[in-house]
Amino acid sequence: MNTPRVKEILSWYGSDNPGTLTNLARLLNHGKLGGTGRLVILPVDQGFEHGPARSFAVNPPGYDPRYHFGLALEAGCNAYAAPLGFIEAGARDFAGEIPLILKINNHDVLLDEKDPLPALTSGVQDALRLGCAAIGFTIYPGSSERVTMYQQLREAATLAKQNGLAVVVWSYPRGSSLSKAGETALDVCGYAAHIAAELGAHIVKVKLPSDHLEQEAARKVYEKEKVPIASLAERVKHVVQCTFNGRRIVIFSGGPASSDETVFQEVTAIRQGGGFGSIIGRNSFQRQKEQALQFLGKIISIYGS
Amino acid sequence: MNTPRVKEILSWYGSDNPGTLTNLARLLNHGKLGGTGRLVILPVDQGFEHGPARSFAVNPPGYDPRYHFGLALEAGCNAYAAPLGFIEAGARDFAGEIPLILKINNHDVLLDEKDPLPALTSGVQDALRLGCAAIGFTIYPGSSERVTMYQQLREAATLAKQNGLAVVVWSYPRGSSLSKAGETALDVCGYAAHIAAELGAHIVKVKLPSDHLEQEAARKVYEKEKVPIASLAERVKHVVQCTFNGRRIVIFSGGPASSDETVFQEVTAIRQGGGFGSIIGRNSFQRQKEQALQFLGKIISIYGS
Amino acid sequence: MNTPRVKEILSWYGSDNPGTLTNLARLLNHGKLGGTGRLVILPVDQGFEHGPARSFAVNPPGYDPRYHFGLALEAGCNAYAAPLGFIEAGARDFAGEIPLILKINNHDVLLDEKDPLPALTSGVQDALRLGCAAIGFTIYPGSSERVTMYQQLREAATLAKQNGLAVVVWSYPRGSSLSKAGETALDVCGYAAHIAAELGAHIVKVKLPSDHLEQEAARKVYEKEKVPIASLAERVKHVVQCTFNGRRIVIFSGGPASSDETVFQEVTAIRQGGGFGSIIGRNSFQRQKEQALQFLGKIISIYGS
Amino acid sequence: MNTPRVKEILSWYGSDNPGTLTNLARLLNHGKLGGTGRLVILPVDQGFEHGPARSFAVNPPGYDPRYHFGLALEAGCNAYAAPLGFIEAGARDFAGEIPLILKINNHDVLLDEKDPLPALTSGVQDALRLGCAAIGFTIYPGSSERVTMYQQLREAATLAKQNGLAVVVWSYPRGSSLSKAGETALDVCGYAAHIAAELGAHIVKVKLPSDHLEQEAARKVYEKEKVPIASLAERVKHVVQCTFNGRRIVIFSGGPASSDETVFQEVTAIRQGGGFGSIIGRNSFQRQKEQALQFLGKIISIYGS
Amino acid sequence: MNTPRVKEILSWYGSDNPGTLTNLARLLNHGKLGGTGRLVILPVDQGFEHGPARSFAVNPPGYDPRYHFGLALEAGCNAYAAPLGFIEAGARDFAGEIPLILKINNHDVLLDEKDPLPALTSGVQDALRLGCAAIGFTIYPGSSERVTMYQQLREAATLAKQNGLAVVVWSYPRGSSLSKAGETALDVCGYAAHIAAELGAHIVKVKLPSDHLEQEAARKVYEKEKVPIASLAERVKHVVQCTFNGRRIVIFSGGPASSDETVFQEVTAIRQGGGFGSIIGRNSFQRQKEQALQFLGKIISIYGS
Repeated sequence: MNTPRVKEILSWYGSDNPGTLTNLARLLNHGKLGGTGRLVILPVDQGFEHGPARSFAVNPPGYDPRYHFGLALEAGCNAYAAPLGFIEAGARDFAGEIPLILKINNHDVLLDEKDPLPALTSGVQDALRLGCAAIGFTIYPGSSERVTMYQQLREAATLAKQNGLAVVVWSYPRGSSLSKAGETALDVCGYAAHIAAELGAHIVKVKLPSDHLEQEAARKVYEKEKVPIASLAERVKHVVQCTFNGRRIVIFSGGPASSDETVFQEVTAIRQGGGFGSIIGRNSFQRQKEQALQFLGKIISIYGS
Repeated sequence: MNTPRVKEILSWYGSDNPGTLTNLARLLNHGKLGGTGRLVILPVDQGFEHGPARSFAVNPPGYDPRYHFGLALEAGCNAYAAPLGFIEAGARDFAGEIPLILKINNHDVLLDEKDPLPALTSGVQDALRLGCAAIGFTIYPGSSERVTMYQQLREAATLAKQNGLAVVVWSYPRGSSLSKAGETALDVCGYAAHIAAELGAHIVKVKLPSDHLEQEAARKVYEKEKVPIASLAERVKHVVQCTFNGRRIVIFSGGPASSDETVFQEVTAIRQGGGFGSIIGRNSFQRQKEQALQFLGKIISIYGS
Repeated sequence: MNTPRVKEILSWYGSDNPGTLTNLARLLNHGKLGGTGRLVILPVDQGFEHGPARSFAVNPPGYDPRYHFGLALEAGCNAYAAPLGFIEAGARDFAGEIPLILKINNHDVLLDEKDPLPALTSGVQDALRLGCAAIGFTIYPGSSERVTMYQQLREAATLAKQNGLAVVVWSYPRGSSLSKAGETALDVCGYAAHIAAELGAHIVKVKLPSDHLEQEAARKVYEKEKVPIASLAERVKHVVQCTFNGRRIVIFSGGPASSDETVFQEVTAIRQGGGFGSIIGRNSFQRQKEQALQFLGKIISIYGS
Repeated sequence: MNTPRVKEILSWYGSDNPGTLTNLARLLNHGKLGGTGRLVILPVDQGFEHGPARSFAVNPPGYDPRYHFGLALEAGCNAYAAPLGFIEAGARDFAGEIPLILKINNHDVLLDEKDPLPALTSGVQDALRLGCAAIGFTIYPGSSERVTMYQQLREAATLAKQNGLAVVVWSYPRGSSLSKAGETALDVCGYAAHIAAELGAHIVKVKLPSDHLEQEAARKVYEKEKVPIASLAERVKHVVQCTFNGRRIVIFSGGPASSDETVFQEVTAIRQGGGFGSIIGRNSFQRQKEQALQFLGKIISIYGS
Repeated sequence: MNTPRVKEILSWYGSDNPGTLTNLARLLNHGKLGGTGRLVILPVDQGFEHGPARSFAVNPPGYDPRYHFGLALEAGCNAYAAPLGFIEAGARDFAGEIPLILKINNHDVLLDEKDPLPALTSGVQDALRLGCAAIGFTIYPGSSERVTMYQQLREAATLAKQNGLAVVVWSYPRGSSLSKAGETALDVCGYAAHIAAELGAHIVKVKLPSDHLEQEAARKVYEKEKVPIASLAERVKHVVQCTFNGRRIVIFSGGPASSDETVFQEVTAIRQGGGFGSIIGRNSFQRQKEQALQFLGKIISIYGS
């Protein structure tokens, strides 16, 4: 039975069909945070995005795609997200044991452009045949290729919604029009979250915002309207506000964490700011399983407290 | 029962099916101006187009997508227009309470090109499933990407008409071939309105034209034929003429208004020139609700007088 | 009952279905030249191609799309051709009164490239729902975008023929590979007419050719074979020859006429050279209706004599 | 009844359906060379490719599309090949009298790029409705646009084979990566023939190869392996070898012949080298009919001897 | 009856349908290595990729497409892979005698770009009608055209899996972002294998990796984590690890072998490192048949020992 909080969250998605709500509920109800309205998701697309050795050499069991299903399951995560091959390689063995998010576009760094365009590597039909609860899609607002991405997302999201899947959008500003600092600037991050929500995402994933303000026209408004941006919790709160005033699930990936303690402080700030959770990849699978379970357990306990 | 004026307007659309006429009638019959043949529409795509903080920080309730449905409804507007996410987030709560226009393409300024191409962010099928009366589409005549836009519009408009929806076209000249002043030049504005009508728009939206004339070949004609362009009312009248001699609904967005009084004067000029109404976004939702209702009420009363 | 001449012309189109022949017959049988095998067509796409004020300010009733249906009808033209919006705005009022040609691609000059690509602005399905007898399509041989145009034409023509419509192709050489004089050079004009016929056009429209020869390889042949090119009638005859030796209907648009008398002389030359008629836009609707009717009447009487 | 040689040739096409074999047999069985396994084909796409006056002014009856059907028929050619318009203009009059090859892509020289891409000007559906036995397609190996061509060919060939048509590929190396001499170099010519066969062509058409070797890596092999290339017959033999060791029909177009005698010597060399025949356009229709019939008769008699 | 090893391998493909498993089993069960879980495949696309003379002049029987079917069959290979034309030319004669892999994209070197894009030359429907067990597809990670390739692969692989075919991916890093040495660098090779597996390949083919490390970010990890890379067997083992920890079949093409002995040593290293086999083209068909059979026999015996 859905908790009142889950019911409340589902009520925000009044234009979706019961199939999509069912899959959103699956994501919200699975794992140790089930029913709380908070989510911790394990994503493992780093093999594709950065290369296998950079991703798994530090903890070689991670080369095996089944490892990550198991890690997400044992840690009590809400869901596990990965590209086609990794999902195909474990979906039968773990059928029905943990909600899956099929990451349908991917980018590799054997060529790393300033204005990247990920490749479509799978699709809604794959998500359905593999028993996934959602598709995942990355957009790079700021890239000169963004129009193509938005339109690919539109097509995939339309099909996903018709077929009762949820849509998770990674919104990562990048491109020749943005400075490096601008990629995590608060104004840019909030804008990126808003774009993802306008494009119809059910769940939006962004990076933790810094207190940098990138665009001059935006900076003037933040200063004039005295938008609080000093603390991380305030910035999270602002991003949540930018995402339909909190009526869309928005979760965060880690910043350049220097220590576990920093991560836990960030998670605490996300929680305080009203963020819905975390998506934690490398920090999880790039340590031995026992440590990973402890680490994820601690994060989950912060959200669940 | 349709008023004689509404019947007259509908008579101009002799090639459309009864479904589309029904939705045009809905737009013309809703709100305080219902039946007068005039329209005031609330558009809220600025979150996507300029960023959420630049749009809503000044009046934070605007971060919530439901706010704008309510504002349009209470103000007695004819319709509310927004991108997919904003419409999805309120369509069930406000089902049937106000005609909706789904803005199916959008442009953001995390990258701002000289010759922009908006992304297709939703479509006719979305408009139908969300109960909308019309689709909205932006073209940028003058952009080197215009051929793509015109063809996207053609496809969407064909489908919309087949499915009984109305088509609203935002026609905003832009691009490396035009000077900044040229974007609102009278010749360019009239040309942009004409193109939108030729592309099959039922309702055309343009910016208020200045008395600048951009293209040399056009300037000669305006001068030779002594087209009156001195007053704003005369220029509005000319744009209406350019739009099939007034047999297509053409509405105007505000110029760079310095004060409410200026806006009211502009609205008066639109009315005098035979324009069909206004589409007013930022000037409405970027003030507190009470003030917004007063402001929109005043505009509506000018049109309704 | 078709005249012997109309029967003869139809006999050239042995690969077309009876539906297309019926629409070709409609074009050949309508108006004052009905049954003669000659055609005078009124085209009004200048609003899109040059802008509304440049097109209609000199004779403001022309801003109204119904004006041109009426002008073509009263003048006894064979057909009226225009883009989607202009046709939609009058097709019900004038249903069945005059054969219509839907101009399905268009180009505007808010941006005027050296190698232009018109936009597809409507299609065969529109022509069918609007009761048109034919589609019209512009190609710019010589443009670096011509491959796209030819392929768009191929798709539209295939569909038109399957659905019993006729295909009229405006073949206007343009592009960075041609000199200004080359655009109307005899060799280029004949080549352009031939390409249109090879692409499957039923009716080809070209500009009146000058005695300039643009391409060196062609010039040698004209000189060696002593192709007569001195008089306009000779050049028209050559273009007719280039268009399957006269077994495709080829009509001409006016050159830069300095006076009505010049136009009449050109029409006389077209008639003498075996051309099938004229397509006359600006010279018709850019004068008062009474004068236009007289002017068109004179042209028709030359062809009909 | 098929001759043993025709049966042998058909046996090479073990992956084709009986419909395609039937049309291959039609090509092999028609005309004076019927049953010999040799072919002489009349192609007339020069009007499109070079312009009508350059093609037909020297023998004006050639402006009429019916002329070429008649010429091919009277000369006893195996087939007649032309673009859409020329085929449409005679297909009913000559229905069933001579096998037709619809040339479905074409290139004109009003703009002549270094790396050309022909336009798709018709398709398999046209070939079927016009009663053709085969489609013809030009590829330009070496052009930077070749990927598009190969993929267009793949789509057309797949459809042709499904519908029982034969596929004839003109393989003409061109492009900025090749020297002028390289376009007819033996290594390049053999490579081009091989590519066409790998792409699934039933009949491959190449230019007569010179003894030039263009690519360094290839030259080394020809020298090391002592491939005989001195005489034209040897070079033809090599090209036949490159085309699946003679298990695909490969025919040749004329080189820059200086006299009829030279052509006859070339034809003799093709015959000696095991080539399957010739495709002869300009040399045929650019002389008076009587001379053309004599000329083609002589060529046919060489092949048939 | 499948051997335990074949059963084990098939168990890794839990998301595939029985049709695809059947075809994987056919590949694993055919030839002298049938049932061992090892594969030796004969690929002959060099005619297309390098030209026919460079490929076959040294052993002229290889010009005949049937030669290679016979060679693969007699040598006891697991499968034969080739482009459309070569497969079409022998599929009926050798129907059911040896598993076929249709290589559906190809690249030629008449134009050789720094960032190549192969052409799609056939498809899944062809593989089905020709009785093939699998499609083969080349990707060039590192090429600026890779997004197109990945997406073409995705479409083809989806269709192949729906129709019960297996998918073999040639993953060859190339492009302006990689040094020549980088194309076979261990980090790049492992990355390329991983990408292919993530894209859904059942069998991955890569080149033998050198001990070069190309990407700085990767090099640091290899050094920090002390990944063993000194011997070829260690490097093969690492690539196998990168390919889902050995749960995808990964096979190797020869390096620039200086002698047969070197090849045998490489094969021994592949076997020691846990590689699944070899794909050997030029080294096989570029020698006389008897020698080729001996050479392949020796390789097979190493794998089978």
